Amino acid sequence: MERMNMEDKEEIKNIKFDSLKKLIYDIFIKLNLLPSDAKIIANILSNADLRGIHTHGVAKIPIYKKRIELNLINTKPQLKVLKNSSVTALLDGDFGLGQVTGYKAMSLAIRKSEKNGVGIVGVRNGQHVGALGYYAMMASNKNMLGIATTNASPSMAAPGSNIKIVGVNPFAIAVPSGIEYKFPIVLDIACSQVAKSKIINSIRRGEKNIPDNWALNSKGRHTKIAEEAINGILMPIGGHKGYGLAVIIDILAGVITGAAFGKGISSNYGDLINKQRNGLFFMAIKIDNLTNIAVYKKRIDRFIREIKSSRSSLNDEEVFLPGEKEYRIAEERYHGGISLSNYLYKDLVLISTELGIEMQKYF
Amino acid sequence: MERMNMEDKEEIKNIKFDSLKKLIYDIFIKLNLLPSDAKIIANILSNADLRGIHTHGVAKIPIYKKRIELNLINTKPQLKVLKNSSVTALLDGDFGLGQVTGYKAMSLAIRKSEKNGVGIVGVRNGQHVGALGYYAMMASNKNMLGIATTNASPSMAAPGSNIKIVGVNPFAIAVPSGIEYKFPIVLDIACSQVAKSKIINSIRRGEKNIPDNWALNSKGRHTKIAEEAINGILMPIGGHKGYGLAVIIDILAGVITGAAFGKGISSNYGDLINKQRNGLFFMAIKIDNLTNIAVYKKRIDRFIREIKSSRSSLNDEEVFLPGEKEYRIAEERYHGGISLSNYLYKDLVLISTELGIEMQKYF
Repeated sequence: MERMNMEDKEEIKNIKFDSLKKLIYDIFIKLNLLPSDAKIIANILSNADLRGIHTHGVAKIPIYKKRIELNLINTKPQLKVLKNSSVTALLDGDFGLGQVTGYKAMSLAIRKSEKNGVGIVGVRNGQHVGALGYYAMMASNKNMLGIATTNASPSMAAPGSNIKIVGVNPFAIAVPSGIEYKFPIVLDIACSQVAKSKIINSIRRGEKNIPDNWALNSKGRHTKIAEEAINGILMPIGGHKGYGLAVIIDILAGVITGAAFGKGISSNYGDLINKQRNGLFFMAIKIDNLTNIAVYKKRIDRFIREIKSSRSSLNDEEVFLPGEKEYRIAEERYHGGISLSNYLYKDLVLISTELGIEMQKYF
Repeated sequence: MERMNMEDKEEIKNIKFDSLKKLIYDIFIKLNLLPSDAKIIANILSNADLRGIHTHGVAKIPIYKKRIELNLINTKPQLKVLKNSSVTALLDGDFGLGQVTGYKAMSLAIRKSEKNGVGIVGVRNGQHVGALGYYAMMASNKNMLGIATTNASPSMAAPGSNIKIVGVNPFAIAVPSGIEYKFPIVLDIACSQVAKSKIINSIRRGEKNIPDNWALNSKGRHTKIAEEAINGILMPIGGHKGYGLAVIIDILAGVITGAAFGKGISSNYGDLINKQRNGLFFMAIKIDNLTNIAVYKKRIDRFIREIKSSRSSLNDEEVFLPGEKEYRIAEERYHGGISLSNYLYKDLVLISTELGIEMQKYF
């Protein structure tokens, strides 16, 4: 279960970004990854914590470690190209850590896009990939439009049903920043109203009630009771709209790629017998192929300025672009260090002790 | 204003699909379109009514006619290719009817995809394009993944603001059907909880109240009062999620293409002085480039079967895939004719009289 998110206030331990990255690297070296692959997972997990997306940072190490020990994640995957063209490819992820596979898949999409304008890469035999925004931003950092989608084990139902049939199937879309505004615009969301972790956090804080649009109980009825919701069904954004989007993403990442889809995907936490077998569908599109990149930069600055200036006269709330808050958190933490909650810190201590790593070296 | 949708029950006139198509064709010939372009708009508008999407069928003729008469829509557009590569293109729509431009843009994307696996086409200087599902299905009918997006005049605010800054920015994604299940799966939605037409319909039916997640009043507060909502701000699906998606689509269809974006887009109904200048961002991706199409067809059938069988044991509701209901309506109406409401019929009578067309010939 995801146990943390940005809302938690019990932050107690501060660690420098580079130290956190080194700690994660050392953990995955001990877990038998190749140095080049350990570097990838260390970059991606530390980046999530840097951006305040704690559910997808070091919080994921315990479950990855457990799945590695159970041979459900392959520490030395051999990625295979199953189908290839100048602008598309289908890969077999060989059950490697999702982040390692995801990084390589988007790198391939970017190389194709650099050469031919577009790169589209599908992956089968994948695992949980963490925050998709990372992969989308790999493309936007190269002045490309980046799109990253993956499918997950079922946690939502079709409208009218109470049977879980599609995952929250997250996706991320990133576009390059401007000259005046330095942050890439990146949308990184799932098709559910909220993540299950939000319900878990409510319970952990001792709250009995949640808003009634978060989840259905197991009978398919709206519930405000957190304990009912946790064993219930997550609600899609916009009813049939979020359901439909989750279905489409299952088709892109699962049906097209030859990965598992629907009930065929095994749960990262809930199934410690089967490999996950989820899929990825990534795109990188070179902006300069559609419009001169310098012109784009001026136009995106103008767009951002316009949105930022739509602040309401009735309150004092700043207006944000998608990904702007995370960028600011990252800037701050890059210099000031990353605060980790008691929960995350304890997990790291436990894992480090097991692996014979001296934790105090890093803090 | 959009005045009709599938919910309206006052259907009184029945017209055969081919007759409706011919009537629309004759109207647009009288409005000075080339026969080839009149054929395109007739196909697309009649298809919307066939599928039960009455807001985007003949209901749109009065406003298109008005905009043509005011020289805000160009009846003889000369589409120009501004930028071109084997897999991408940027077009200037020359302010033609959105449907004519949209059809040609997706046709170009499909040609590129047939040859090179992928086709991505952006359009500037566009107009309202109608139901985006049509364009996405042009691709899915060719065994391609089809994606169609457009941006619209602002009707939603950023979270915390009460200033309209982004449109509902609709998008459609279609994938090919299987062997057992004949319908393409097509998601065709906007980023708002509901269309403004739904609020207008509530008022027309004499309902004073609407659900409180449809709209904010002009001060940015949730409202259940339909009359307040109509002059207020539409709510995005999933709060910051739908807002973020609308921002991204504005960037794809507007910022990248060189079309207008944000407040720069003029309203189809609300501004009869300026051209709309919205944009399009269309994609067609050949499935066979990623996975053998025959294998895909088997897999999509299995996926559909799995979803259809997730019917709840607690009620008798059938579970639908995105676009399945519309496909069934279309099948039925293709044989049994299309029922048009009194409102739509009166509009057609008015227009036909003005243009010297004998309406009774078609009914």
